[in-house]
Amino acid sequence: MVDCFPDTQDKAPALPVELSRVGVKGVKKLLTLNRGEKLRPIVLIPTFDAYVDLPSDQKGIHMSRTPEAISEVIEEVTTSDAVEVESICAEIVEKMMLKHEYARKIEVEMESDYMFNRKSPVTEKNSQEMGKLIAKAVGIRDKDKITIRKSIGAEVVGMTVCPCAQETVKEVDKNKLLEFLDEETTQKVIDTVTFASHNQRGVGTILIEVPKNQKINADTIIEIIESSMSSPVSGLLKRPDENATVMNAHQKPVFVEDCVRNMVEKIVDEFSYLPDDTIITICQLNKESIHRHDAFAEKVSTMAELKEEMKDILN
Amino acid sequence: MVDCFPDTQDKAPALPVELSRVGVKGVKKLLTLNRGEKLRPIVLIPTFDAYVDLPSDQKGIHMSRTPEAISEVIEEVTTSDAVEVESICAEIVEKMMLKHEYARKIEVEMESDYMFNRKSPVTEKNSQEMGKLIAKAVGIRDKDKITIRKSIGAEVVGMTVCPCAQETVKEVDKNKLLEFLDEETTQKVIDTVTFASHNQRGVGTILIEVPKNQKINADTIIEIIESSMSSPVSGLLKRPDENATVMNAHQKPVFVEDCVRNMVEKIVDEFSYLPDDTIITICQLNKESIHRHDAFAEKVSTMAELKEEMKDILN
Amino acid sequence: MVDCFPDTQDKAPALPVELSRVGVKGVKKLLTLNRGEKLRPIVLIPTFDAYVDLPSDQKGIHMSRTPEAISEVIEEVTTSDAVEVESICAEIVEKMMLKHEYARKIEVEMESDYMFNRKSPVTEKNSQEMGKLIAKAVGIRDKDKITIRKSIGAEVVGMTVCPCAQETVKEVDKNKLLEFLDEETTQKVIDTVTFASHNQRGVGTILIEVPKNQKINADTIIEIIESSMSSPVSGLLKRPDENATVMNAHQKPVFVEDCVRNMVEKIVDEFSYLPDDTIITICQLNKESIHRHDAFAEKVSTMAELKEEMKDILN
Amino acid sequence: MVDCFPDTQDKAPALPVELSRVGVKGVKKLLTLNRGEKLRPIVLIPTFDAYVDLPSDQKGIHMSRTPEAISEVIEEVTTSDAVEVESICAEIVEKMMLKHEYARKIEVEMESDYMFNRKSPVTEKNSQEMGKLIAKAVGIRDKDKITIRKSIGAEVVGMTVCPCAQETVKEVDKNKLLEFLDEETTQKVIDTVTFASHNQRGVGTILIEVPKNQKINADTIIEIIESSMSSPVSGLLKRPDENATVMNAHQKPVFVEDCVRNMVEKIVDEFSYLPDDTIITICQLNKESIHRHDAFAEKVSTMAELKEEMKDILN
Repeated sequence: MVDCFPDTQDKAPALPVELSRVGVKGVKKLLTLNRGEKLRPIVLIPTFDAYVDLPSDQKGIHMSRTPEAISEVIEEVTTSDAVEVESICAEIVEKMMLKHEYARKIEVEMESDYMFNRKSPVTEKNSQEMGKLIAKAVGIRDKDKITIRKSIGAEVVGMTVCPCAQETVKEVDKNKLLEFLDEETTQKVIDTVTFASHNQRGVGTILIEVPKNQKINADTIIEIIESSMSSPVSGLLKRPDENATVMNAHQKPVFVEDCVRNMVEKIVDEFSYLPDDTIITICQLNKESIHRHDAFAEKVSTMAELKEEMKDILN
Repeated sequence: MVDCFPDTQDKAPALPVELSRVGVKGVKKLLTLNRGEKLRPIVLIPTFDAYVDLPSDQKGIHMSRTPEAISEVIEEVTTSDAVEVESICAEIVEKMMLKHEYARKIEVEMESDYMFNRKSPVTEKNSQEMGKLIAKAVGIRDKDKITIRKSIGAEVVGMTVCPCAQETVKEVDKNKLLEFLDEETTQKVIDTVTFASHNQRGVGTILIEVPKNQKINADTIIEIIESSMSSPVSGLLKRPDENATVMNAHQKPVFVEDCVRNMVEKIVDEFSYLPDDTIITICQLNKESIHRHDAFAEKVSTMAELKEEMKDILN
Repeated sequence: MVDCFPDTQDKAPALPVELSRVGVKGVKKLLTLNRGEKLRPIVLIPTFDAYVDLPSDQKGIHMSRTPEAISEVIEEVTTSDAVEVESICAEIVEKMMLKHEYARKIEVEMESDYMFNRKSPVTEKNSQEMGKLIAKAVGIRDKDKITIRKSIGAEVVGMTVCPCAQETVKEVDKNKLLEFLDEETTQKVIDTVTFASHNQRGVGTILIEVPKNQKINADTIIEIIESSMSSPVSGLLKRPDENATVMNAHQKPVFVEDCVRNMVEKIVDEFSYLPDDTIITICQLNKESIHRHDAFAEKVSTMAELKEEMKDILN
Repeated sequence: MVDCFPDTQDKAPALPVELSRVGVKGVKKLLTLNRGEKLRPIVLIPTFDAYVDLPSDQKGIHMSRTPEAISEVIEEVTTSDAVEVESICAEIVEKMMLKHEYARKIEVEMESDYMFNRKSPVTEKNSQEMGKLIAKAVGIRDKDKITIRKSIGAEVVGMTVCPCAQETVKEVDKNKLLEFLDEETTQKVIDTVTFASHNQRGVGTILIEVPKNQKINADTIIEIIESSMSSPVSGLLKRPDENATVMNAHQKPVFVEDCVRNMVEKIVDEFSYLPDDTIITICQLNKESIHRHDAFAEKVSTMAELKEEMKDILN
């Protein structure tokens, strides 16, 4: 009886409209990536979104085939050693291409909490820190040929200190110092003292395309994001660590715009081997301590464009 | 003293990198739109995001000018009768073009809770229902000429009933009925009875470009979204209303894909006067009652493409 | 036909279990509070949660009566001048007591965005600022007597500067200054300069019981929350305003604990007329700029206890 | 230098106010619980909140000691075999009692995604399903004696079908059937057919105190929550599974109130060995498909009270 259920999805729809994306959002899985005997496995709890396009002559997409493809890949991966999350997304795209034979474009996106280890700056306490890993794969079918472009990235929280507010505080305090100090001593004091500014939680995000036979280390991306803000943050800071974090951050004030530019420089520096048409998305969100709203900056471009902009700096 | 603060933003940045978007996210305002003496004013609490692009020779965007532009427009609008939210976004773009004279592209987005009135289907109880209004404006400066494209849309919750599950339930029950009824009576029963399926909260979204001298009524968009699902929902349903809602919805089962197609048909029907290059985005998210995850469908296209797909239906 | 629908809710449940709270969550309404001819009406978009207890001999609560009670009160209020949101909650409790005649305890909670006006500290720009209004009413029925206790409160964002980090920065910089300045000059410099610390968005919350014939002004609560942090924040700060905000905030560093204590002091000062058994809840959440996690402090007590703690300070 | 930083927290505060809770919110960690050689380790990414009370003579709590305590316990646990999350919370409370010697009350709460395996009802496909594990420990210090009460629980999504709407649909359809069938056949048809209702995602939650030397299996709690709704849901349902899920669910319609009562019955059945003063919290939230708002029911009581209510049922 079960086998003869009518296949409502395969029928022609009443309205012959093509759809750009049909799929599932929020499929959550446990993913254990073994890394050989010596290293502890990487554990992720990724959430997947996955879509196919749908031609105008088909009513529905057989929705269940998509979580099925995700499940099958997750199950296989846990026992293999293919550890790149963007490759997992690409494998899901491939499996979905088989299951949705009418689809010409398939997209899979993933994000997951991701644990990385840090030491606090002075007391060198070990601390588990939590960031987000993001990955994406887009497959295009042209007749029998399937081309997949995949990307990996991360989202990390850090601390940003506003350079503009720090300059104005310095200016006001300088005028007060000049009332009892000469210019030279005032300048020495200014060069010595850590002036206040507003500072806040910043969230940096990078997403980079990865060519078929290349690898990009997610940990390197995390380091780039962290080091592009005024200071990394930490879950565990003893008093000397807190002091060093604050003082270091105020030595390196950055606008939301600067964070993006710093990430650009480091990406060009680190991943210059990537092809010219590699698409790179970089953004920074600062949860301003002096406002109710957030500040935001974004750059979307190709590796060729980034290299062109950086050419005077890098030579 | 205050006047001589250094302008950190106007300096050249250390890294000559152009940025795609720099701005603010989450600026929340109260907006009262008067509609003449006879009508109650429309009240919105919109949240704005607003961005400018930034050339490679300027360090920062003078961030405060953006919430200032939003505030000024909001303040002016409350005492005028320009009631289209997409026009408010366009006015903010214009004001930002003046304040950020280096910008070539400026984007403003807005969303707000929006109250509309409905009667329950049987007892005709009045009920305030809450949807979301969305609007957007993008300005491009080419030398001295500024072109602004603006869009209006809405996001509304409704109920969707799965046609596939309903068919299989009908199939299983039909076989049971055939054990004690003849084929003809069985068919009559099947045509009479409201068979179960899974049903759930669906969220439909439409965003439509609005040409310079045209208007699109947000209430019409809301009606299109509501009527493209199996049934509208309501905050206040007495027992007969609840019954009618459930029975009506099960007379009109729709996939997530069907909701999008239904919206396409109604949009072409209602807004056929819009230019061919009008960009229209339609999507539907169903919070599946049988899954932890959601089902999703989306169509992004131009009015010309929609009309082409619909031409056999409409003639 | 409609009238003879079976009343499933009135049946005895299979399991004779009493329930503490049964109701609705997330009922969103538009509420316009007129304030006479001279003042602009207050507009809120509150979200209501409302619960009744359910005896062990009744299967269901007739759920629709609760949003109905909310709707009816909202409809009446828009045309009256009863402007206290906690009284609106109390009226909903009263109406629900009539509709749920078996209920012995009824709870109604509400929260809404709430706009208040501020001037920026130096340039005196007007700015709409957005906080949250919260209110609550709990009714107890003892035979024919109904007692209602109601509360009003608010949640407001501000800026907090850490006193501990500022002390350590000062200590480190002092030692550096002593390398080229004598002790007295060093001290003068320290007293002059605005030392850095970490600072962040803080969220303060107060909820206060309001006796039957008393009023508590929500705007006063908002001022207490704002002034208990290092500085208010604003959506619109020109450079001199930003400077003043940062400098003022660093003159008044506060721990998350201090914010709560400051609110205690101001509440005792402002609302000393409230009865001894008035329950007062105060909390503060700091979205730490040096951590991924938040810092939190809370005090729940009666007015009598607060007065006892404050007695040495106030005399 | 580092060692002589001033201890701002140990000072007396300007206002001698006692605080109920001071601590951290949102500390996220990776937790691997080994279960011997044969079983795969359980992996969690819990988020912790942890608070201490603060006497009126101390300015601050030495905030960093709290994430430090969490880190230390997490680090120890990964290499032990103490697998109960509520015991991990209790260990953090103990460690915090040592680090915050002034504290009389310490609270630690935790929640984490938690993966469990299910088979689909007909095709028996394996599927990873995701729920939430919750745990809590509260420690009270009375002179030298520390008493800790700990709790474990879970939050699981399932499907609920409304019994009231199903009854009214049946009533309406019955009248239509009577137009061409006799009473007896009509009744047979009614007993055979799966009538429609509204159905939706429900979220059930249970939290149970665990005595010092007892264990409560989290998987049993998850099964109780799932089986108290109309049907479990699944990430992977082929057409026959979807059909069975829908048909089974409609055989077992439940109000939000019934879900809580069903959980009560199963808890009394399963955990009758727990002491009379065990506190048990049960709630159910239904994301109604016919409304924008949710339906909610809750019961908070002791095991003694639950047993008393259930005594006629259980005998």
